[in-house]
Amino acid sequence: MSQPLRLGIAGLGTVGVGVVRILRQQAALLTARTGAKLTISAVSARSKGRDRGVSLSGYAWEDDPVVLAKRDDVDVYVELMGGEDGPAKASVEAAIAAGKHVVTANKAMLALHGQALAEAAEATGVALRYEAAVAGGIPVIKSLMEGLAGNEITRVMGVMNGSCNYILTRMESSGKTYQDIFAEADGLGYLEADPQLDVGGIDAAHKLAILSSIAFGTRVDFDGIQLEGIERVSIDDIRAAADMGYKIKLLGVTEKTGRGLEQRMQPCLVPDTSPLGQLEGGTNMVVIEGDAVGQIVLRGAGAGEGPTASAVLADICDIARGVRGPVFGQPASTLETSTRASSQRPAAYYLRMALVDKPGALAKIATVLGEAGVSIYRMRQYEHDEPSAPVLIVTHKTTRAALDAALDAMDGTGVLAGAPVALRIEEV
Amino acid sequence: MSQPLRLGIAGLGTVGVGVVRILRQQAALLTARTGAKLTISAVSARSKGRDRGVSLSGYAWEDDPVVLAKRDDVDVYVELMGGEDGPAKASVEAAIAAGKHVVTANKAMLALHGQALAEAAEATGVALRYEAAVAGGIPVIKSLMEGLAGNEITRVMGVMNGSCNYILTRMESSGKTYQDIFAEADGLGYLEADPQLDVGGIDAAHKLAILSSIAFGTRVDFDGIQLEGIERVSIDDIRAAADMGYKIKLLGVTEKTGRGLEQRMQPCLVPDTSPLGQLEGGTNMVVIEGDAVGQIVLRGAGAGEGPTASAVLADICDIARGVRGPVFGQPASTLETSTRASSQRPAAYYLRMALVDKPGALAKIATVLGEAGVSIYRMRQYEHDEPSAPVLIVTHKTTRAALDAALDAMDGTGVLAGAPVALRIEEV
Repeated sequence: MSQPLRLGIAGLGTVGVGVVRILRQQAALLTARTGAKLTISAVSARSKGRDRGVSLSGYAWEDDPVVLAKRDDVDVYVELMGGEDGPAKASVEAAIAAGKHVVTANKAMLALHGQALAEAAEATGVALRYEAAVAGGIPVIKSLMEGLAGNEITRVMGVMNGSCNYILTRMESSGKTYQDIFAEADGLGYLEADPQLDVGGIDAAHKLAILSSIAFGTRVDFDGIQLEGIERVSIDDIRAAADMGYKIKLLGVTEKTGRGLEQRMQPCLVPDTSPLGQLEGGTNMVVIEGDAVGQIVLRGAGAGEGPTASAVLADICDIARGVRGPVFGQPASTLETSTRASSQRPAAYYLRMALVDKPGALAKIATVLGEAGVSIYRMRQYEHDEPSAPVLIVTHKTTRAALDAALDAMDGTGVLAGAPVALRIEEV
Repeated sequence: MSQPLRLGIAGLGTVGVGVVRILRQQAALLTARTGAKLTISAVSARSKGRDRGVSLSGYAWEDDPVVLAKRDDVDVYVELMGGEDGPAKASVEAAIAAGKHVVTANKAMLALHGQALAEAAEATGVALRYEAAVAGGIPVIKSLMEGLAGNEITRVMGVMNGSCNYILTRMESSGKTYQDIFAEADGLGYLEADPQLDVGGIDAAHKLAILSSIAFGTRVDFDGIQLEGIERVSIDDIRAAADMGYKIKLLGVTEKTGRGLEQRMQPCLVPDTSPLGQLEGGTNMVVIEGDAVGQIVLRGAGAGEGPTASAVLADICDIARGVRGPVFGQPASTLETSTRASSQRPAAYYLRMALVDKPGALAKIATVLGEAGVSIYRMRQYEHDEPSAPVLIVTHKTTRAALDAALDAMDGTGVLAGAPVALRIEEV
C-alpha cells in the first residue's frame, strides 16, 4: 500500500460534515479502492465549538484556512467553504503555491477565477478537482472530461439548480403563484442565503460556465452567459405550456456555433415527454451531446450532504489513485478565449398574449408575425369570460431578432390587452 | 508533449471502423486532451480486402491478432473482435504477457474470464479497460468505479440490451406479437448472429456480471445470475401491464443482500412514470444507487458505431493520460468470491390468469393466495366474450417461495383456464 493521503478540510457545513462522515465510516472501502489510507490531518471552520454531529477529535483545528492549506501534514486541501473570493480563493491559492492538491465544491470561484487557478495548479503540477461544483452527486465533470474525451462535444444542457426546479414543478402541481412557492421554498431552507443566486439563475450559470470550458476547450466565461432567472415565470405560463405539451425549466445550454460560443441560462419550454421535461422537484439533469456518442443523459441529486460529499470523495479517490491531468481537460494555456455569439440560435418560441375582444384582433397579430417572417406552427384561443382573449402561439423556428421585431410591431396594433410573454422552446 | 501512444487494433467491424475514424478525424482534439499523439501502428481483421469506408493505408496489417498484440510498435492493444474465447482471449492474454495495455469491448470475455485477465494485467502492471463492454456510449464503468468511489453501492439496475428493449417497446406500440416483432428486428439487423444472446438475456447478463464485480468488490460471477429472457413475454402481458400503469422491461438487477449477492436478469414490471419505464426503443439506461449519492441515472445509446467507439476512445485517452489502476476497481486479488443469494428479495408480483367462468372461481384464487400468505394489493377482472375470465392481480410484497406455493395450489383448484403468468415488479 502506498503512503497515506492526508487531508485538510476547510468548511464544516453540510457538505464538509458529510465528507468527514464518509472518510470515517468507509475507511476500509476507500483504502481497498484507492490503495491508500485516507486520513484527516486538520480541519477549519468558522465556529470551533458547534456540535456538528460528527466527532472531530483527532484532527488539528485551524482558525485560518490559509494556514490549514499550507500545513506540512496536508497533501490535499479540501475547500468546502464557498464564496467566489475571500478565504476560499486565498486558501486555494495558498494550497497550490505550497504544492498541495486541491479539491473544491466552489462553483462561483471556478466560474470567475478558474483560468488563473488552473494555470497556477498546472504550473505547480498539482491536481485541482471540482466534481462537486456541478450537479452535486452526478459525475458530470468526469463523464464530460474523461468518459466522452473521444467526442467533439456539440451541446451541453442542464437543469442544474434544484431549488428553481422545485419551485417550477411545485407551481405546476399546486397551481400557486411564483411568490407563494418562493416563500414556501425559502421557509423550507431550500434557498441560498442570497436567494437571487438560485432564482436569478446565477448558481446554475456558474455551473454552466464550467461545463462550457471543458466541453469546448475555452476559458471559463461566466460573463458571456445570457442570463435570465425564473422570477418572471407565471403560473399562467406554466399552465398554458402544459396545455400545449411542454414544461417550463430553467435550462442552461452551451453550444459552439458558427457565430461563436453561445451560453444561455433562461426559462425555456421543453417537451413534457422528454427526460428534461419529466424532471420533477430538486433533481438535476445534464444532457451531453457529442458527435460520436449522440446524446447522454445524467440524472441525480444536485445538492445535499450525501450527494455532494460523494462527489468530493470521488475527487479525493482519484488523487489517491494518482490521477492528475489538466484542470479543464486540456492545459489551461491552450484554452481559447471564446468568441461570444451575439445572437441566439434560431428556435421555436412560445407566445402568450391577451387580445382585446374585437373582430380582426387575431388577424392583426397573425399579419404582424407574418410580416416579420415569423410563421405560426400552432395557435390556440381559449374561451374566456374576461374582456380580453387569451391566445397561445407556438412559432416555427425563427430568430430572436425576427421575433423581437414582431413583438415591437404588435405593440403598435392596438389589439394587445397587456404585454405578451415570449419563451424559447429548446429542442431536446 | 509525451511520446506518441501507438495502437494496434484487432477487429474492423462497425466499432473498429468507428475507432479508426475518430482517431483520424479528431487527431488534434485528442492530442490537446491527452497530451499525446495517438497513432495506429497496425490493424487486424478477418478479411483484408474488404472495403470498410475508411482508409487503412499507413497501418501495418496482421492476419493474426496474437501477432498484432505483441508487436514492438504497439503500446495499447485494442481488441474489438468479440467472442468469449478464441482469438480475442488469446490475443488479450498475449498482449498482457507482452506488457501492452489492453482496451476491449468484449463483455463475454470479461464476464467469463475477467478474474484471470485482471490478475494477469495487474501482475504485469498494464491497464485493462473496457468502458465499451457495458451500455455502449454511456460512461457507466467510469461513473461506477471512479465517480461513485466514495459510496457503498447498494444496487445497480439496468436496461442494457437495446434489441430487447426495442422488441418490447415495438410490441406495445404496434400491438403485434413477440414472434412478429422478433422477425422484424432480425430483418432490420438489430439482433446478434445468435439472437439468443440478445433475447435470452445473455448479452445483458454479461454486462450485469461486470457491473456487479465493480459495485460490490466481488469476482465476476456470470453463472450466479438468475437468467430469463424475453421470449415468453406476451403482447397480452404488455397490454395488461400498461393498463395497470407499468412497462415490461428486461431488467438486470444486482444487489448485495444479507443473504448474499443477488444478480438477476429477467422481464420485470416497472412503473411507467419512472425513468426506466419511460425508456423507449434501443436506448440503454443504468441506475446506480449508493449510500451517499442516492440514485444516479445514466441514459444513452447502448450500441452502434459512434457510441461504442466513443467508449473505446475514452479508455484510450485515459491510458494516454497515464491512468492505470485495478481492472475492477480494487486489486483482483482482493475481490471476494460472492455468496449467491439462494432466493430473490421479496417483491410485489403481477399475476395474469384466465379463470373458468363459474361462480366462486375468483374466491378460490383469492383464498389460495391468502393461505399462501400472499396478499392482494390490486385486482382487475375484465369484461370478456370468451368462456374464461381474464384476471389481473398485483400482490403486496411477498417472497417468490410464497408466490410459487400459491401458484402450485391454484393448479389444484380447477378454476384456472390456462397457466398463470407471474412477473416481478421491481421497485425503481
